[in-house]
Amino acid sequence: MHMEKETARIEAFSDGVFAIAITLLILEIKVPVSGTPDLASQLARQWPSYVAFVISFFFIGIMWINHHRLFTHIKRADNTVLVLNLVLLLGVTSVPFPTAVLAQHLGGNGERIAMILYNGTYLVIAIFFNVLWRYSVSKKHHLFGKDFDEAAVQRISAQYALGPMVYLLCLVLAWFSVTASLLMNIALAIYFLLPPAHATKFGKNPQ
Amino acid sequence: MHMEKETARIEAFSDGVFAIAITLLILEIKVPVSGTPDLASQLARQWPSYVAFVISFFFIGIMWINHHRLFTHIKRADNTVLVLNLVLLLGVTSVPFPTAVLAQHLGGNGERIAMILYNGTYLVIAIFFNVLWRYSVSKKHHLFGKDFDEAAVQRISAQYALGPMVYLLCLVLAWFSVTASLLMNIALAIYFLLPPAHATKFGKNPQ
Amino acid sequence: MHMEKETARIEAFSDGVFAIAITLLILEIKVPVSGTPDLASQLARQWPSYVAFVISFFFIGIMWINHHRLFTHIKRADNTVLVLNLVLLLGVTSVPFPTAVLAQHLGGNGERIAMILYNGTYLVIAIFFNVLWRYSVSKKHHLFGKDFDEAAVQRISAQYALGPMVYLLCLVLAWFSVTASLLMNIALAIYFLLPPAHATKFGKNPQ
Amino acid sequence: MHMEKETARIEAFSDGVFAIAITLLILEIKVPVSGTPDLASQLARQWPSYVAFVISFFFIGIMWINHHRLFTHIKRADNTVLVLNLVLLLGVTSVPFPTAVLAQHLGGNGERIAMILYNGTYLVIAIFFNVLWRYSVSKKHHLFGKDFDEAAVQRISAQYALGPMVYLLCLVLAWFSVTASLLMNIALAIYFLLPPAHATKFGKNPQ
Repeated sequence: MHMEKETARIEAFSDGVFAIAITLLILEIKVPVSGTPDLASQLARQWPSYVAFVISFFFIGIMWINHHRLFTHIKRADNTVLVLNLVLLLGVTSVPFPTAVLAQHLGGNGERIAMILYNGTYLVIAIFFNVLWRYSVSKKHHLFGKDFDEAAVQRISAQYALGPMVYLLCLVLAWFSVTASLLMNIALAIYFLLPPAHATKFGKNPQ
Repeated sequence: MHMEKETARIEAFSDGVFAIAITLLILEIKVPVSGTPDLASQLARQWPSYVAFVISFFFIGIMWINHHRLFTHIKRADNTVLVLNLVLLLGVTSVPFPTAVLAQHLGGNGERIAMILYNGTYLVIAIFFNVLWRYSVSKKHHLFGKDFDEAAVQRISAQYALGPMVYLLCLVLAWFSVTASLLMNIALAIYFLLPPAHATKFGKNPQ
Repeated sequence: MHMEKETARIEAFSDGVFAIAITLLILEIKVPVSGTPDLASQLARQWPSYVAFVISFFFIGIMWINHHRLFTHIKRADNTVLVLNLVLLLGVTSVPFPTAVLAQHLGGNGERIAMILYNGTYLVIAIFFNVLWRYSVSKKHHLFGKDFDEAAVQRISAQYALGPMVYLLCLVLAWFSVTASLLMNIALAIYFLLPPAHATKFGKNPQ
Repeated sequence: MHMEKETARIEAFSDGVFAIAITLLILEIKVPVSGTPDLASQLARQWPSYVAFVISFFFIGIMWINHHRLFTHIKRADNTVLVLNLVLLLGVTSVPFPTAVLAQHLGGNGERIAMILYNGTYLVIAIFFNVLWRYSVSKKHHLFGKDFDEAAVQRISAQYALGPMVYLLCLVLAWFSVTASLLMNIALAIYFLLPPAHATKFGKNPQ
């Protein structure tokens, strides 16, 4: 009972960080100043900002769903969970920066570097997710509820292990073609949002 | 019980996003720099910023009330609800951008484009609201509580269907007269805030 | 029971808005750019920013405490409470703007205007507080709990009525002397923070 | 029961402020504008921003953990606790400013001043923490739960007393060597994050 309240506090704090990071993204989109001769084409020229915004929005949203799912299993939090979660949130709060860099440089000279920074950030976050989850699983008799679902835990482990790989693939792809990497990012966001297996089922048994 | 806790988390996250988006609006109002010769008239010249701020504030506020009402009916959330809600929040977090564009360009060359972007954003959000609600209604035996109020559900469906239409009207109006569209937006905000039928009654039976 | 949950949602949303508005204040303090020859004296020259920040921080903090106290009495919320609360929050979220204007213009030509805008904002918020409270009191048999404390309600009414007057005094004072108005603002913040009668007593019987 | 709810509100508001302050830090990192000839080296040149961001992130994170721990002991909040907590939050919300100043000036002429301002801010926050805690301990029979753990309370008092000293040391060190002070800050952040004794154990008996 007391323990549950404790992870509730961690979740509430984390939820706050996710909600703020996802909402701050919009501040990085430049507002064309008053007096811009052709506003419509100026707004259209800023398409990289919108693309970067939408992808980051859904990536953070998906991370929030995953974080949430993680803590449906983790019932107790020791100091290591607390610190690893903080490290994970460090990654999440940093997302607006590579997003803004990508928005500024997509289509320009620096687009390769910007794309690598962008996917590098998600790669690091995905690794942090795995570290937090692996640690929790390693102490599952201590940190999970009594009747945790071993099969569900295994499934999450397998799925989370994919995360760093797909972001690494996007990062490597950027080296050859920024466009290909960008399309792969968009495909990923759509894939993550589509229904089955790979997404959380809130209020259902996760089978 | 467990399910209710799940939608509670979605609501808390959504509330966070609404609260942040509504509070970030103020950051888009330009602060006249130190040394401005006539501060009073400089502040007065910025009236489009204040108008855009106030309308967007109430539109987001009204959306929050509507979102809240929606989730008094939705008791369970499947993956589709989760994703559709995320798409809706994408719309909500983007509001500060068209608001700032309108604030910069109202009274200038780009005001028609700015006004269309502004109402276009609300049109899209209104459509997202309808999609989320329609989907939930289509699965009402699964997602709603056992004893949901069919009449209340019908009433909400009818009311929500109006949303996209009024914003589309504002958008089309902008093509002919930006001033008329702006006045229609102000009228809408006032109408939404006025008491009966069309607004939520917290803590009352919604009859 | 159901009703209490409803005002809990309003309070949580309002708390979010207060917490964000109070934290955004810091963003309005200008960071001296790299290469500033004498950083120490540049930081010192920015004293109006720090003064404006600290006063606004405590004013928003005090408003949060008052808002909280208000909702210890209000147990039900009808549509009017919802709308009046939204209008009040409009005032709260706008605070970073007059604060930044004051920070930019204190000590310059525009300081009188800036001071009037600053206290004018608080005057309007104080009036909104009174409107929300008066309305709730007028429907007390409907909106308050069964066993509300008539004496406590009377005390709050008397105290809230003072708010607009003191801010109006600061505003009028600014016309004659900006320094006097500023000192009065500082005195007010200290007075509001000092212990007895006029401040909330959390976890005590409010006698 | 009623009292617990009251401190829950203070904690929720404080959590919000901590979550926002920690997430706003990223906004202070400058985004290289489109057209920057060599983006990679430009991003690399900004290393002071990243260092300042990461240290501040963990310092705020650690403060959140400490604040949380404090309120596992404080069960009631009188007016003084409310005001002292507000003063503490004033310190927390101000962190993005000295962080941005440090990011701008590390490696430049103003780095000594920036480092002193940076550690001076944490020194003041640490003192505020002690004031809040000492006050609460002085009224422990009134503010703590009936069965508070005297040994745990003593341990926190001893540990908190160290805070101002280590930040003062960093501040004094900055006078002689900014690099040494920076390294000491990094060491501190790592030390605070490492497991035993000095960190909270959520969901465990704090023995």
